Amino acid sequence: MTLEQELMQRLSQSEDEMIQIRRHLHEHPEVSFKEKETHAYIKRFYQNLNYPVRDCGDGYGILVDIDSGHPGPKLALRADFDALAIQEDNNLPFKSQNPGVMHACGHDGHTAYMMVLAKNLIALKDQLKGSVRIIHQPAEEVYPGGAKSMIEDGALDNVDNVIGIHVMSTMPLGAIGYHLGNSQTGRSNFTVTFTGKGGHASMPQLSNDAIVAGSYFVTALQTIVSRRIEPADHASITVGSFDGAGTYNVIKEAVTLKGDIRIMKESTRKVIHQQIKQIIKGIETTFGVKADYQLITDTPVLYNDPSFTTQTVDAIKSAKIPEITQVTDFGAQDPSEDFAYFALKRPSVFLYVGCDINDGQTHPHHSPNFMMDERCLLIAAKAAGAATLDYLFR
Amino acid sequence: MTLEQELMQRLSQSEDEMIQIRRHLHEHPEVSFKEKETHAYIKRFYQNLNYPVRDCGDGYGILVDIDSGHPGPKLALRADFDALAIQEDNNLPFKSQNPGVMHACGHDGHTAYMMVLAKNLIALKDQLKGSVRIIHQPAEEVYPGGAKSMIEDGALDNVDNVIGIHVMSTMPLGAIGYHLGNSQTGRSNFTVTFTGKGGHASMPQLSNDAIVAGSYFVTALQTIVSRRIEPADHASITVGSFDGAGTYNVIKEAVTLKGDIRIMKESTRKVIHQQIKQIIKGIETTFGVKADYQLITDTPVLYNDPSFTTQTVDAIKSAKIPEITQVTDFGAQDPSEDFAYFALKRPSVFLYVGCDINDGQTHPHHSPNFMMDERCLLIAAKAAGAATLDYLFR
Amino acid sequence: MTLEQELMQRLSQSEDEMIQIRRHLHEHPEVSFKEKETHAYIKRFYQNLNYPVRDCGDGYGILVDIDSGHPGPKLALRADFDALAIQEDNNLPFKSQNPGVMHACGHDGHTAYMMVLAKNLIALKDQLKGSVRIIHQPAEEVYPGGAKSMIEDGALDNVDNVIGIHVMSTMPLGAIGYHLGNSQTGRSNFTVTFTGKGGHASMPQLSNDAIVAGSYFVTALQTIVSRRIEPADHASITVGSFDGAGTYNVIKEAVTLKGDIRIMKESTRKVIHQQIKQIIKGIETTFGVKADYQLITDTPVLYNDPSFTTQTVDAIKSAKIPEITQVTDFGAQDPSEDFAYFALKRPSVFLYVGCDINDGQTHPHHSPNFMMDERCLLIAAKAAGAATLDYLFR
Amino acid sequence: MTLEQELMQRLSQSEDEMIQIRRHLHEHPEVSFKEKETHAYIKRFYQNLNYPVRDCGDGYGILVDIDSGHPGPKLALRADFDALAIQEDNNLPFKSQNPGVMHACGHDGHTAYMMVLAKNLIALKDQLKGSVRIIHQPAEEVYPGGAKSMIEDGALDNVDNVIGIHVMSTMPLGAIGYHLGNSQTGRSNFTVTFTGKGGHASMPQLSNDAIVAGSYFVTALQTIVSRRIEPADHASITVGSFDGAGTYNVIKEAVTLKGDIRIMKESTRKVIHQQIKQIIKGIETTFGVKADYQLITDTPVLYNDPSFTTQTVDAIKSAKIPEITQVTDFGAQDPSEDFAYFALKRPSVFLYVGCDINDGQTHPHHSPNFMMDERCLLIAAKAAGAATLDYLFR
Repeated sequence: MTLEQELMQRLSQSEDEMIQIRRHLHEHPEVSFKEKETHAYIKRFYQNLNYPVRDCGDGYGILVDIDSGHPGPKLALRADFDALAIQEDNNLPFKSQNPGVMHACGHDGHTAYMMVLAKNLIALKDQLKGSVRIIHQPAEEVYPGGAKSMIEDGALDNVDNVIGIHVMSTMPLGAIGYHLGNSQTGRSNFTVTFTGKGGHASMPQLSNDAIVAGSYFVTALQTIVSRRIEPADHASITVGSFDGAGTYNVIKEAVTLKGDIRIMKESTRKVIHQQIKQIIKGIETTFGVKADYQLITDTPVLYNDPSFTTQTVDAIKSAKIPEITQVTDFGAQDPSEDFAYFALKRPSVFLYVGCDINDGQTHPHHSPNFMMDERCLLIAAKAAGAATLDYLFR
Repeated sequence: MTLEQELMQRLSQSEDEMIQIRRHLHEHPEVSFKEKETHAYIKRFYQNLNYPVRDCGDGYGILVDIDSGHPGPKLALRADFDALAIQEDNNLPFKSQNPGVMHACGHDGHTAYMMVLAKNLIALKDQLKGSVRIIHQPAEEVYPGGAKSMIEDGALDNVDNVIGIHVMSTMPLGAIGYHLGNSQTGRSNFTVTFTGKGGHASMPQLSNDAIVAGSYFVTALQTIVSRRIEPADHASITVGSFDGAGTYNVIKEAVTLKGDIRIMKESTRKVIHQQIKQIIKGIETTFGVKADYQLITDTPVLYNDPSFTTQTVDAIKSAKIPEITQVTDFGAQDPSEDFAYFALKRPSVFLYVGCDINDGQTHPHHSPNFMMDERCLLIAAKAAGAATLDYLFR
Repeated sequence: MTLEQELMQRLSQSEDEMIQIRRHLHEHPEVSFKEKETHAYIKRFYQNLNYPVRDCGDGYGILVDIDSGHPGPKLALRADFDALAIQEDNNLPFKSQNPGVMHACGHDGHTAYMMVLAKNLIALKDQLKGSVRIIHQPAEEVYPGGAKSMIEDGALDNVDNVIGIHVMSTMPLGAIGYHLGNSQTGRSNFTVTFTGKGGHASMPQLSNDAIVAGSYFVTALQTIVSRRIEPADHASITVGSFDGAGTYNVIKEAVTLKGDIRIMKESTRKVIHQQIKQIIKGIETTFGVKADYQLITDTPVLYNDPSFTTQTVDAIKSAKIPEITQVTDFGAQDPSEDFAYFALKRPSVFLYVGCDINDGQTHPHHSPNFMMDERCLLIAAKAAGAATLDYLFR
Repeated sequence: MTLEQELMQRLSQSEDEMIQIRRHLHEHPEVSFKEKETHAYIKRFYQNLNYPVRDCGDGYGILVDIDSGHPGPKLALRADFDALAIQEDNNLPFKSQNPGVMHACGHDGHTAYMMVLAKNLIALKDQLKGSVRIIHQPAEEVYPGGAKSMIEDGALDNVDNVIGIHVMSTMPLGAIGYHLGNSQTGRSNFTVTFTGKGGHASMPQLSNDAIVAGSYFVTALQTIVSRRIEPADHASITVGSFDGAGTYNVIKEAVTLKGDIRIMKESTRKVIHQQIKQIIKGIETTFGVKADYQLITDTPVLYNDPSFTTQTVDAIKSAKIPEITQVTDFGAQDPSEDFAYFALKRPSVFLYVGCDINDGQTHPHHSPNFMMDERCLLIAAKAAGAATLDYLFR
């Protein structure tokens, strides 16, 4: 039996364990940067294995190093474990017990398969080459998320490449998805406060109406995507917050807007940032208001290194894992993903594992009805396992 | 000594009393419809005179009937007594003791001079003709204010005419102001909620962005005043509240806007109401949102009956009150005033009494620095007293 | 018979002559600054009287001085004589014979009554005091019109006061209208060209779209009237021309807009001018275009000197002219009138003479269906005649 | 010597002829659908070869069938021959002699290489298999262009596949570019006339201002690309014409706008068409205008059949043509191309042939300075020739 065969067999035998862990996490979800119990749970798991781990980063991040003692490259495998502030609307024996909090994106699954994969890699440690680092990451759902401070705290030290996996309820069970190059959007946020001059609604000529200024700003902002960006390029700008609550008869002195930018190329981000500043300056002049503008540059574009991606995908194909029925280019995705920080530092790949439960309904990520077919856990573990072995012994 | 001379003398002698009352009220301001202590204070004043009063309306309104027992017309004199939710910023021995509440519009003065005038008219009651009704009105500052329910509760029963007075920090002490016909704006309020479809900021095509809809609504709204109203006519529309607070990365599902309309002719109000509805319908179609529109028709235009106004102004002039140095047409005023409800029902006049303290600074109404020269109290009392006597004995 | 009686009698006897002249002019209308034949016709009239006249101003203006030889004030009477580029749509025996040109504002009537009035004043010349100057003015309908250059050419030299009259199809026959103070709007025009960068419609990111800039300019412009002007003040801003014709697939490099401003106070004009400049600057910044802005300050507000107006109106009332059934304040009027230039230099009055033909239809000025009841000519002549005598002998 | 070697040799020897033809065409450019002399010139060329051709389509299209007499597939090769309404700004001995008309897109080159290739294929006709159809197409630059009516007139009858070539001044000489799938944008045009109600600028309340309506339409239109389209999808909407020229003081009754839409997926086109109609309906309601909307659906997306493209590109690579230094995926292009009509009907490929003259300056297509390195002609002929032989003998 080859090492690969042995790992695959072990994982098949561990499927129940993955499901148990996933259900436990699902029942006890915790929102980003508040994953205290999840952190303790993961640490206990490794304690029970008598295996050392270390905390990493500002949040509840954990690193597990599986060093073969033999020379070879170092591969990081990353799984995130935070949940969302959503009230679960599924009828499940292991439904969330934390009101208003839910694993509605599948990070419970990521962590479950990864813990079991780690356990088995630890068991086979001496037969490996090089080393594997398991990155249990908190707070993927918020910006800036958990990746950044883990990297600053050494999560990528000596690491050569990184693999991440996300389950996908929009892909059928059995499918592995990938994309070469820019694969998930980069994101920036901004805040702008327009301050005019308040006053009595019956005497507008004595005021500078901040709601009027803010509204024209929103309309002018539309021209960036519609006129300033190469039509083939990915770009969106959303004003997600227009905070101008007041009373009927008082002209509003100040309004604060919050915006979200998504791009697939850093050059697009640059154009958008520059144009927003121009428009804000123009609004100041046109409407006699002062603007206080704050730019928060968030997640980079998630870049799947083409050669590392191809190598990883080929490894998975070669492993002929029976549960995997297709390995396809899934295209670029609109949402952002803070795995992008790892990919910015090391040649990396972020893969998708289909988890559609195929009940004729949709179970979108971030919805109160998100559900996964738990057989995806084994698939994720096997795909990551096969890719890891191929990588270490290449 | 004529009756007029006697009343004038009495008022002169009561100046200190007016000032004491005014200072008491100033120290203990209460916001609209919460004037419990003010109401008790006023009632105690009449109790001490052993004179009956009656509560009137939904709020803390009080009616005081001074019936001469002789035939003759019935004149109502109205004074309001509510304060504003403003933190006083004056250094006065009688500065507001209620945090965040202030008599910043001078209603303390209105009530003070009126109580003392009433006391003296009561004293001279048997020498009068017809009768005088004192209307102590709460809640002028809010919409719908105190006038409406007092009228519904009989405040104008058998009343032939009404006189109201407002102190004015923008007019010099000694001045009486008036205007014939439409004199203060009518007002409507509206609320509109635009409901689109929320969603993830990275996928705008799946949502209907309510902030975008609301913003274009605000810009389109500007065309009513700029294009739909006869340029000579008074009109303003203010969106005083754009309640669209949210988060960066979520497309806002719904926003609620509050608007204020000021007009000087009811026909203008009609055009504005109709155009707002048109624009809202257009926004629904253009941006794929649903609108929930609520119109609140408030204060009517304040109409000073020209003949009653001329008669009253002439009476004040004829009285040759030494403290009054000018009686002038002060022009129409931008703000609204719920005295308009009385003026809608009976031929009425609303006069202005200058109260500028002439310290080289401005003390605008509704500002934390509002101040009055208290000598205006005596002037108001005398003007109202002289007009009353002229009216009753005409 | 008093001099006034004699003048009135003469005018009554000259009614047919006025009507003949008016019909001749109506048949042969000429547009502003092209009134060559009209000018010749008027001069022939005075030549036939053997009375000297002089040309005045850049256009076809004519001055006729009627000097009594006795001391006294000098009064100017002004009548305009240009027509409009409108195709007449009336069935009249004396319908316009010049295709596309029509006396659609009544200036034919102004000139007709004035010529006959002048003729009769000339006949009575020696009995007058002081002197009367008849101002036959061309080009009232365009900006800058004929008044300006006539004034520069001495039309008001030694003149003390000026009276002008306009027939009004919106007032009943027999009515004389007036208004004190600001009575017709002042006007400014502006032109602005926004120049961006043209390009191929498929690559907007390489261009600066001038149509987009111009369109947002128009929407922002609406906020001046809606937010920057005291709601009680008269103001309108119209973009009457948006010249951006082009082809489907080329992004427009430049657009030129023409605007018209109407105000009733010079302070309003100032605010508007300043705000337009601000908005243009803002548009330049927001949309990356360059603006070339040209302001043309036109007609001033037409100001009827209150005391001279009252004096003139009183004179007309006192004359008890039987054809005049009412003399009323007609209110301020939206359109502009270049008589305002005269009124800027001398205390003046501009009166309205009702001319509604009362056929149950409307005959608006500047419409192809404009018509007047020709009995208004005698009324205008008598009103002006009576006012003139009263003025000279005051 | 293989047939391929023979064709390549013949083409090498014909390079001068291609250049002569290209220069002749360059000197005598004709705009779309007016290519009378060009048509006569091409026909003369085949007459001199004593070879039959036939006219095809509404314009000056020509078909040349080169039938081997042996069984086999039928391949069409398409070259367009119209010029643009641009005044040439190059100093060339063969500069355009037609004022205001220029071959500024390189169609002279397309036609030149194609005529010479055709001549040589005719010479080798009996050695071929199947048949080749040369499509000389007029009017590519306008919409709908020449392709449509040629197809309706049988240009693709019995044709199995189509190859087109465009020279590219943005690619280096020696380069062949291609792209799989959607490769050049589809295009729609629309015209919309908003009709309000004209009137006098001083009385906006009596009019419905069409310029205001049109301007708000332009601003609302921006939201389609910015909010209604999946950010990853290609979309642009340009209003290239805003025809609202008028005068200062008349409110514009009607304006006409012309728009251009570019998309890379038909589903995007559908969304845009639907949203434009929604916005127009909304503008009608909001501004009280009537809209007359005309949609012109133009060029489809140019789709390069992936398998036929790969086959063609592989054939060119295999031919090891010495003048060709690279064959690369050039990406999708923003402009539209009416070759798309052929590609809609038959599996086709549209290739790019680099023609940069490498003088340190840019010579963009559709500019008065467009220039090509004429060595591209031989490269185009050889690439098309090699692909043709490979295809016929496959």
